[in-house]
Amino acid sequence: MKADGVTLLILDFPARPPGGPEQAAALRALADSIAQEPGLLWKIWTGSTAEGRAGGAYLFESRAAAEAYHRMHADRLGRAGVTGIEATYREINEPLSRITRAPIP
Amino acid sequence: MKADGVTLLILDFPARPPGGPEQAAALRALADSIAQEPGLLWKIWTGSTAEGRAGGAYLFESRAAAEAYHRMHADRLGRAGVTGIEATYREINEPLSRITRAPIP
Repeated sequence: MKADGVTLLILDFPARPPGGPEQAAALRALADSIAQEPGLLWKIWTGSTAEGRAGGAYLFESRAAAEAYHRMHADRLGRAGVTGIEATYREINEPLSRITRAPIP
Repeated sequence: MKADGVTLLILDFPARPPGGPEQAAALRALADSIAQEPGLLWKIWTGSTAEGRAGGAYLFESRAAAEAYHRMHADRLGRAGVTGIEATYREINEPLSRITRAPIP
């Protein structure tokens, strides 16, 4: 595992109440924007209805790209009133991950 | 999001000290076995050298498949002396995830 290599970033925070059509359109626009972020390979949008959580699992090309996105997105979420954002950074074991069909470059 | 649909399972636990060639071979054999688990789409093998953590991010076809694997793997890790396994289950927002190139079925 390389500390400066491909990085999995997990963000998890309290979910906001479900919105209507306007919020759905805003989230699609946000997804379009996130898809363009430098160094992002992919994002899975995650949530837990039972636990009232929202967030995402992101794979970035580098730790630096993950950290830059995390800073930007935490600021953006904060302006939207989201607090208590938990972030977890993990390195990837590439040889073992390939054996288990992992979606890595 | 569907509580019984495609499920992201994150397992995270204290890393054991790095082993030698025998442990590496055992881990490859374990990966071969995990690749055959029912309902598993993929596993990314994760770790943090700085935090001393090991684990994985798994995508399963269903919550039931994730729970069955979690029970089996926690028992297996326990027999290997691993304690303090943290498990997080998350549902997937498919429409938004597709926009951000998520590796989902």
